[in-house]
Amino acid sequence: MFDFNIVSKCKTTRARAGILQTAHGEVETPVFMPVGTLGTVKSLSPEELKTCGARIILGNTYHLYLRPGCDVIRRFEGLHGFMHWDGPILTDSGGFQVFSLARLRKVTDEGVLFQSHIDGSQHLLSPEKSVEIQECLGSDIVMCLDECIQYPAERNDTQKALRQTTQWAKRCKDAFKNEKSALFGIVQGGMFKDLREMSAHDLLTIGFDGYAVGGLSVGEPKEAMIEMAGFTLPILPDEKPKYIMGVGTPEDIVTLAALGADMFDCVIPTRNARNGQMFTATGAINISNSRFKHDTEPIESGCTCYTCRHYSRAYLRHLYLSKELLAYRLNTIHNVHYYMNLVRHLRTAICENRFEEFRKEFFKNSLQAIT
Amino acid sequence: MFDFNIVSKCKTTRARAGILQTAHGEVETPVFMPVGTLGTVKSLSPEELKTCGARIILGNTYHLYLRPGCDVIRRFEGLHGFMHWDGPILTDSGGFQVFSLARLRKVTDEGVLFQSHIDGSQHLLSPEKSVEIQECLGSDIVMCLDECIQYPAERNDTQKALRQTTQWAKRCKDAFKNEKSALFGIVQGGMFKDLREMSAHDLLTIGFDGYAVGGLSVGEPKEAMIEMAGFTLPILPDEKPKYIMGVGTPEDIVTLAALGADMFDCVIPTRNARNGQMFTATGAINISNSRFKHDTEPIESGCTCYTCRHYSRAYLRHLYLSKELLAYRLNTIHNVHYYMNLVRHLRTAICENRFEEFRKEFFKNSLQAIT
Repeated sequence: MFDFNIVSKCKTTRARAGILQTAHGEVETPVFMPVGTLGTVKSLSPEELKTCGARIILGNTYHLYLRPGCDVIRRFEGLHGFMHWDGPILTDSGGFQVFSLARLRKVTDEGVLFQSHIDGSQHLLSPEKSVEIQECLGSDIVMCLDECIQYPAERNDTQKALRQTTQWAKRCKDAFKNEKSALFGIVQGGMFKDLREMSAHDLLTIGFDGYAVGGLSVGEPKEAMIEMAGFTLPILPDEKPKYIMGVGTPEDIVTLAALGADMFDCVIPTRNARNGQMFTATGAINISNSRFKHDTEPIESGCTCYTCRHYSRAYLRHLYLSKELLAYRLNTIHNVHYYMNLVRHLRTAICENRFEEFRKEFFKNSLQAIT
Repeated sequence: MFDFNIVSKCKTTRARAGILQTAHGEVETPVFMPVGTLGTVKSLSPEELKTCGARIILGNTYHLYLRPGCDVIRRFEGLHGFMHWDGPILTDSGGFQVFSLARLRKVTDEGVLFQSHIDGSQHLLSPEKSVEIQECLGSDIVMCLDECIQYPAERNDTQKALRQTTQWAKRCKDAFKNEKSALFGIVQGGMFKDLREMSAHDLLTIGFDGYAVGGLSVGEPKEAMIEMAGFTLPILPDEKPKYIMGVGTPEDIVTLAALGADMFDCVIPTRNARNGQMFTATGAINISNSRFKHDTEPIESGCTCYTCRHYSRAYLRHLYLSKELLAYRLNTIHNVHYYMNLVRHLRTAICENRFEEFRKEFFKNSLQAIT
């Protein structure tokens, strides 16, 4: 059921436009996946997500496993029915959250023993368990359990985590039986190029439907993130989708697409919206700024999102300062629409063989004003 | 521009069906007005409000005067443009909030001196000022500034507040110049029937486009509220709209409609939704209840609201327990839809001369189960 085809390639960069085929429909790449942690992209309805241009969303295995739990989601034959989203869903493995949110963890060959951040209950997340949960969620793209090393990390620790990741990836592949969905491997190796190469080699030997670059955006300098992604992406097979996990800003996405990335996810558009930061082609603005008090203009002139078609900066500022629930939603609509628009335009530029001009224009505008 | 016509009357009760004509369209009565305190009915978009059946909403003068302020709303030629709502808006006078929310108040003949609950700034709310703010808001139905006495209150204090209310009502009438909108007087008099009668008489002498019964739902027993409304409604002129302020539960609305009330507003459907209480024809349920954990059914079987068409009790319980923003919105949609459906069915029953049966059936069902 799962397939990936490249429809166009940039002649001067590694950027490419493709199509993912999933059990829940096609997705054009490069694609950005809004994060729907707990079975909801915070504040938005599925219809709004679609109107914003979202075609595939991400669900968090760790969160959904703990709350509401697989016993609940199974009644709905997966996350799609539970949350009323009929498009594709990619689920992470739960590993990243276990390492960043849970308590009292112990990593063994078997898996990760952790305590829930909600009620302290103890759980073991193994590769098999992660695949089982993701299959219960009805995931279209299942991610292998990996050990995400923190930044900075010693070479020895990084190599140990990489080996664990490889072992777990093998077990995920063995446990994964669903023919409708895809299984992606995750390249680790921290900030060490030879370890990244080793990790990629290990995963390619096992063989996956797609490859992700993990362990980025974990605190390293921006340049290191770009360099490591730029090193890793070309050593992954061009005929498979390449996914940069947890990244990033609009600028990151344009830069990484040029390096050959096809898929992105990040909480930036949604979380920043809830903090009042709104993206525009000429830089981000903070809606709480007093200069917007009487501003009758929309967030971004010419923007076709629901928020910009009907509401002013003054109104959005008022809602935001008043902590009104509608503020988070209207802001999120704009930012998700902005991200979707960005990857759509980026893709069109690749298809029309003018990606370089697009990128230059994008950076010229985006660096104009950051407030 | 403003007009009110009765289209049908119940033969055995005082219930009546009418039509309000306003500068922003017609409204069928009895009508329930969702409360949009700060220029937003919490969590809902105007489009959702309309889909729920809302035709007129209430704006709070006190809140909007303090935040964002008339200087901002004037740029949008009123609240309609500011908040993207093109239907009628009724605004309260600000008096109730000044007495319940603000600090260090001093009531003089001139008006009420109060300190903002937000920043402590000092303001004088006079009858003239209240009308001026409401006109700046572009209100379709302007309410007179009244002195709302707390419960319980001595007769002397109640009479004093009543006299103040009458004096202020006169000044509101003098200050009110807008021919497009309507001005309503508010009957006070606490729990004293002769004072209610005196207040109504005073207001009738001045003459208003409609009459409200104020000073109810301020802590008195339910029976006292019903008795006082039942006494006051008939002494108001039948050819004018009669509005019970700040009331109430679905049961209150059916009971008061039978006593001749045409208009209602209350935070119950919206606030209770945010607290997980959902209304159904067979009583209210609390969505956090563990018995809904695996429940694949909608809040109310057969309900045509967006929430019930697409989401289960299990999903809504999950969102609510996870404090997800979408929870408040989906719950609010259902409750507002429930209230709108209730008054629509109630009105149809009046028009089809079967209000008594409707009322009996309603109470038989609604008393079945309160969880």
